[in-house]
Amino acid sequence: MAAVRPLFVVAGVGNAAGTGAAAARVFSNAGYGIALVARNQGSLNALSDEINGAGGNAVPFCMPSYSPGNFSTTFASIRNSFPASHYSFRAALFNIGHGVWKPFLEVTPEDVQESFNTNVAAAFSFSREAILKFKENTTDTENPNRGTLIFTGATASIRGNTMTSAFSIGKFGARALSQSLAKEFGKDDIHVAHAIIDGQIMTGAALARLGDKPPSGLSPESIAQSYLYLANQEKSAWTWELDLRPAHEKW
Amino acid sequence: MAAVRPLFVVAGVGNAAGTGAAAARVFSNAGYGIALVARNQGSLNALSDEINGAGGNAVPFCMPSYSPGNFSTTFASIRNSFPASHYSFRAALFNIGHGVWKPFLEVTPEDVQESFNTNVAAAFSFSREAILKFKENTTDTENPNRGTLIFTGATASIRGNTMTSAFSIGKFGARALSQSLAKEFGKDDIHVAHAIIDGQIMTGAALARLGDKPPSGLSPESIAQSYLYLANQEKSAWTWELDLRPAHEKW
Amino acid sequence: MAAVRPLFVVAGVGNAAGTGAAAARVFSNAGYGIALVARNQGSLNALSDEINGAGGNAVPFCMPSYSPGNFSTTFASIRNSFPASHYSFRAALFNIGHGVWKPFLEVTPEDVQESFNTNVAAAFSFSREAILKFKENTTDTENPNRGTLIFTGATASIRGNTMTSAFSIGKFGARALSQSLAKEFGKDDIHVAHAIIDGQIMTGAALARLGDKPPSGLSPESIAQSYLYLANQEKSAWTWELDLRPAHEKW
Amino acid sequence: MAAVRPLFVVAGVGNAAGTGAAAARVFSNAGYGIALVARNQGSLNALSDEINGAGGNAVPFCMPSYSPGNFSTTFASIRNSFPASHYSFRAALFNIGHGVWKPFLEVTPEDVQESFNTNVAAAFSFSREAILKFKENTTDTENPNRGTLIFTGATASIRGNTMTSAFSIGKFGARALSQSLAKEFGKDDIHVAHAIIDGQIMTGAALARLGDKPPSGLSPESIAQSYLYLANQEKSAWTWELDLRPAHEKW
Repeated sequence: MAAVRPLFVVAGVGNAAGTGAAAARVFSNAGYGIALVARNQGSLNALSDEINGAGGNAVPFCMPSYSPGNFSTTFASIRNSFPASHYSFRAALFNIGHGVWKPFLEVTPEDVQESFNTNVAAAFSFSREAILKFKENTTDTENPNRGTLIFTGATASIRGNTMTSAFSIGKFGARALSQSLAKEFGKDDIHVAHAIIDGQIMTGAALARLGDKPPSGLSPESIAQSYLYLANQEKSAWTWELDLRPAHEKW
Repeated sequence: MAAVRPLFVVAGVGNAAGTGAAAARVFSNAGYGIALVARNQGSLNALSDEINGAGGNAVPFCMPSYSPGNFSTTFASIRNSFPASHYSFRAALFNIGHGVWKPFLEVTPEDVQESFNTNVAAAFSFSREAILKFKENTTDTENPNRGTLIFTGATASIRGNTMTSAFSIGKFGARALSQSLAKEFGKDDIHVAHAIIDGQIMTGAALARLGDKPPSGLSPESIAQSYLYLANQEKSAWTWELDLRPAHEKW
Repeated sequence: MAAVRPLFVVAGVGNAAGTGAAAARVFSNAGYGIALVARNQGSLNALSDEINGAGGNAVPFCMPSYSPGNFSTTFASIRNSFPASHYSFRAALFNIGHGVWKPFLEVTPEDVQESFNTNVAAAFSFSREAILKFKENTTDTENPNRGTLIFTGATASIRGNTMTSAFSIGKFGARALSQSLAKEFGKDDIHVAHAIIDGQIMTGAALARLGDKPPSGLSPESIAQSYLYLANQEKSAWTWELDLRPAHEKW
Repeated sequence: MAAVRPLFVVAGVGNAAGTGAAAARVFSNAGYGIALVARNQGSLNALSDEINGAGGNAVPFCMPSYSPGNFSTTFASIRNSFPASHYSFRAALFNIGHGVWKPFLEVTPEDVQESFNTNVAAAFSFSREAILKFKENTTDTENPNRGTLIFTGATASIRGNTMTSAFSIGKFGARALSQSLAKEFGKDDIHVAHAIIDGQIMTGAALARLGDKPPSGLSPESIAQSYLYLANQEKSAWTWELDLRPAHEKW
């Protein structure tokens, strides 16, 4: 009988150079099946091909929008592609985030609703689906935890600044959600964690802006390593929250 | 020539026994004109009559819903009732709040949207209108500040707990907004503050539940006194955030 | 029979232009007898004379050093000068603070011990004496609280920065103490509060450095007004912590 | 030429069943030489023997007291036992902690001084020696970081409670120190981290108290794994602070 492999679902895979993609690679190398969720079919396909080419098993799931109903459908599709006989949902990353950068009086009600939709409502629906799947798991020697749900946070998760009112509304909200979930589901052996990324992530675009200057921000790969560590923490000592920033960052 | 009096706008006047009503009375006694904003015409009329009967000048403004457009209309109506020749907007209290108390898996997307609408989107629109009005003010010897905007927060503003995921999403978001606003508009002599009410407020219903037992929570009147203090702080030493809890509270 | 007047003890009155002196004036104007505690006899005498000249009742108490035994002796002396028949201890301000500003590797063990002595050990002994005195009080209609103990905190109370390792060790410690005390003695109707002064205080020296430029920091008088407010808070809604910073401060 | 191996210094090895001992084992298994520092020669020898018996290289360094001078002497002795030709200081754990559990009015000045000595002054001296050693290192492909200094924190590091005034004074202070150090030395490729152990650690004594009941606290081994992870973090994404608590903990 083939062993049941762990499955990692990552939502928010903007392009091949960001945190979501790095996490997909790192969890794939660690033996997870990979469900890639995002709104851009092109990015999804490219990353999926890359991971599969490197010997992994990744499947893209494109969502037309991050509505609650779509998350439900998507998780059902993931289950179809990764049947329970071969895969158990063991880790999930909510890496979706979006924020406008504007003086408050230029922020529109639509900006605020969009920040809520992307950062909070989507997190809520994604969390619900992930936790429902985790609850199907049992724990055993090899899998002492039923599942790990990780949120990518930001400086704006803990600090409202000028220019970030709409963004921090959403990021504070997602952090609140993660704390509630950590408290409610810890007793069910489900681990919920929140990472405060306190600096600029060195995605492709950020690297291009730097030109010849040395990279000064967080590498997506390093962030992804911390996510894998969180998923591997033994349940006698779980982390809800950690901060991550470059050694040279002034803070 | 008659002096221009300060005007206090309070949004969220559930009934005559809550924080909003207490703030209206306290600011009225301190010489402010009072604009009462809520969705329940009956409560609004009763409180307005009470304040006017006590020698104040209160006007009720009933909003069918807390939509952005309705806030804009309401502030225009307030200006009509309290013309610039006689009143300047000097203080505003966002006292609207709403939260479901449910296990996470029973929370619906509608619950989350409702928490966002009430706690965040309404706060955003209310803040926008209040700040635009404050910016019309000049400062002078009698009015060293252009205006004070206060948010009623809760324990759920700083802590996500089991049962409070939907509520804390909204309260964290409003706190983020208040911090962004405090940072952005302080330099314009506009004061934004956030009060964490860390305990049960002794409204009429809460008192009734207690029966013969002595009141153990926060009195709305005491909270209101702290709001008046915040509005009176000199601008060399402004408070963004303070906590308020009963002396005997365990925390 | 003469009424028993409230007594305010302030420790840390560096000179006539600082927070301690401003608090002494403000509480004197509010009807408190004033016990001035510091290590510099000259400053104490000058401030005492000034307050008495303005119609107050202030007495200087010079301490050779802030040792536990000296605090005990000093409070006994205060009681002698302000006998229980005429005065009850109702408010106390711990305004002592001291910090070196050095790169970590230049900080000596003596610097760290000195920071502890001044910011923490002195706070501990002062708090003990104040609370013992407050516990002698009863509450009545005029004095619903048995006493209020206030700590002057700083940015370094909540944030360790480069150059402030020794100072923040002490200020974090004093903040911890204030929180423990607030929790332990609230149920005894004793109020303990901590004010984070998040900016430069405009003492005489700071004003002199500014020259012709407009004052940009916190006025000691404004800080003192917030302390009086804390002492007056009704016990159904007590504040443990508030921040204070200039309107125009970037934070 | 033999490769230079990394050296881990752990201060605070109460007995073979605690966090310090677990960290020593975990770092030994990861290839580090181990310098064990504590005040009890018997415990040190037993653990040292155990680690060496398991194929590691541990040396005990007994300190008569945690005075600054003794830390300086101890680090010189460590260097003698682990010469630069074979070992480079790469990780250090400050695991010393001590706290009385008493109502405030029973806490003595000696208790407070002892809390300061153990939790803060010792941390200061230990940090100084560790950082001076780390600064001797260069970074290279195999050792991208010059060194990692970790502090074992507690719930009392972030919350002052009744009964914990003396303990939280010290733990807040050590946390302040760790944050200052993280900010000052990050730019020198030296990583400083603080772990909040938010629950009871299942040492031998704690397990014995439980009797037949299942372990409900943090296993020292799990905590130690998180310390090794912190030492391995890549410098583009360093954590200053994380919390650790059992999955089933109510918080």
